[in-house]
Amino acid sequence: MRIVLDAMGGDHAPGPIVEGAVEAVQGEPGLTVVLVGDQARVEAELARFPDAPRARLPIVHAAEVVGMDEKPVEALRKKRDNSISRSWALMAAGEVNGIVSAGSTGAMVASALFNAKMFLPGVRRPGIAAIFPSHQGPVVIVDVGANMNARPEDLYQYGVMGSVYAEQILGVDQPKIGLLNVGSEDAKGTDLTRSTAALFRAGPMHGRFVGNVEGRDIYDGNARVVVCEGFVGNVLLKAGEGAVEFLFSELKQEMARLLPEIPEEAGGKIIASLRGLKRRYEYHEYGGGPLLGIRGSCIICHGSSDARAIKNALRVASTLATDRVNDQIIRDLEAAPRVEEVAPPPKGEAE
Amino acid sequence: MRIVLDAMGGDHAPGPIVEGAVEAVQGEPGLTVVLVGDQARVEAELARFPDAPRARLPIVHAAEVVGMDEKPVEALRKKRDNSISRSWALMAAGEVNGIVSAGSTGAMVASALFNAKMFLPGVRRPGIAAIFPSHQGPVVIVDVGANMNARPEDLYQYGVMGSVYAEQILGVDQPKIGLLNVGSEDAKGTDLTRSTAALFRAGPMHGRFVGNVEGRDIYDGNARVVVCEGFVGNVLLKAGEGAVEFLFSELKQEMARLLPEIPEEAGGKIIASLRGLKRRYEYHEYGGGPLLGIRGSCIICHGSSDARAIKNALRVASTLATDRVNDQIIRDLEAAPRVEEVAPPPKGEAE
Repeated sequence: MRIVLDAMGGDHAPGPIVEGAVEAVQGEPGLTVVLVGDQARVEAELARFPDAPRARLPIVHAAEVVGMDEKPVEALRKKRDNSISRSWALMAAGEVNGIVSAGSTGAMVASALFNAKMFLPGVRRPGIAAIFPSHQGPVVIVDVGANMNARPEDLYQYGVMGSVYAEQILGVDQPKIGLLNVGSEDAKGTDLTRSTAALFRAGPMHGRFVGNVEGRDIYDGNARVVVCEGFVGNVLLKAGEGAVEFLFSELKQEMARLLPEIPEEAGGKIIASLRGLKRRYEYHEYGGGPLLGIRGSCIICHGSSDARAIKNALRVASTLATDRVNDQIIRDLEAAPRVEEVAPPPKGEAE
Repeated sequence: MRIVLDAMGGDHAPGPIVEGAVEAVQGEPGLTVVLVGDQARVEAELARFPDAPRARLPIVHAAEVVGMDEKPVEALRKKRDNSISRSWALMAAGEVNGIVSAGSTGAMVASALFNAKMFLPGVRRPGIAAIFPSHQGPVVIVDVGANMNARPEDLYQYGVMGSVYAEQILGVDQPKIGLLNVGSEDAKGTDLTRSTAALFRAGPMHGRFVGNVEGRDIYDGNARVVVCEGFVGNVLLKAGEGAVEFLFSELKQEMARLLPEIPEEAGGKIIASLRGLKRRYEYHEYGGGPLLGIRGSCIICHGSSDARAIKNALRVASTLATDRVNDQIIRDLEAAPRVEEVAPPPKGEAE
């Protein structure tokens, strides 16, 4: 298994990125990680790990980096020798099975979408998945921002691909699929949601489809895969992060006010417990969000990824890039009902 | 000022609803609250308050109630003598200035939309506002579910009406308006967001318009009014409630684990502090979400509203129903640029 890693992508690259690659290859004897980036800087980072199996950590030089704040498409055009484009070139040439980057999400998605040959057979538009917490364990939300003009067949495909991700990576057996909507009946929502519900009900996924999931229901975890269009998913993901940050900052203030009044030992325990709780929402464990629908695999990590997040992302990329996983997705997509043949439910009432 | 109150709407109606009405009229000498509902039951509740100024608490009988779980439009058709329809009939007849209900949101919105004569002049589709917390104080989000097919001119109108609400009810001077989107540049997002941004930039609101607001930015509070289409807003609102509930349930478990290890007094203080924090997210203070764009005013309260929430909702309804507020909205809407005359920015890149 060969995965290409954008060594220059991430807020603190290349340090923790290279470190994550070293840990990943040390942990998986069959794994090669191709490091793309500034040769001298990557070499210098690798030199920190004299025991690293260098034969499985080849470097491909790329002189430039797409900045996190640059306009993605513009940056990709101007900086021809950037690490993201070089990494995708290896994917397109079939030299690697998967791609991982903690760099610009926009540049990663734009690079993927530039070339439909990189899509899995049958996929119309790839979608990004993100993990939300729930009372029953992690929930996969697709799409969180790759596709701003989703069609019903796209959301169906996200359900299929999100299920495979939930099974293979999160270990959920036969995950239930829900459709993000504003109410519980099929008639609720928009033309997109009505037609999507009809597709799920008509096809082989009908047994897994639990119908509409409202915003609040995500956290119940009855559906372990929730599909939505990219605009809604992106707002939901970022608002969720904002809400958690906000709440913890309020909690911190509250505790700062309380701590002088309670014994030091008790205070220390509470602070440690709150820190632990916050850490649980930081999702290092799954190492980033996959762009689902790519031949092989593509994982887009958070900019702040540390070595552990990168190591986990490489592990996830390896699992998703196997022929077994890709073939299962292709088979499930082939079995999808055709949107022309399925009548959507009648239009419903306003919420 | 005369406000009609659906005495039968709400999880615990009519008890706390009638109590809230009594408190409201006792607090505001110029206020009359028309109670609509089962005459005998409302009378029985009123009898608990011998000091209540009964002349300012007239009752209008309605034999039926729309259940919270009923399909709104179907229920409104079947139950002709329901308290929501009877309340709207008083609005339509001009007998009251505003309407308040803690009953079915769907039935309240559907009743309002049935009759475009109830819309303020110039309003195409009313929108529901909800309050989110932020580091700079409450933020108004419009629309959270009244309009599933928003046009750019609708989002512009929500910005205008949300501003008036933020000024009059939240006391924010010249509130900044943001557009919910997936990135910071105007080119981001969908045709709807691009055209909406162009409208704000072209019209008299341009000085207040801060451009795109991402999900995370809501909590910064730089924009005190954030506009979006109803589908996105509804998902955002419910997901936000779900996230807060989820986080507090995790916190509760964490504290239950810790409490045996810390002194009882310290534990009590912490529990009280967390309860206080949670209560801050329950929005009783503003008494519910206004349906903006209605002649007079319309406040839709949470089903779990207590007397305090109803009292506050009646106060908000009174403030919003004044001619001064309505005239300001009408004037600001008249000054809106016409969508045909404004070119949207070019289509941008994928997120």
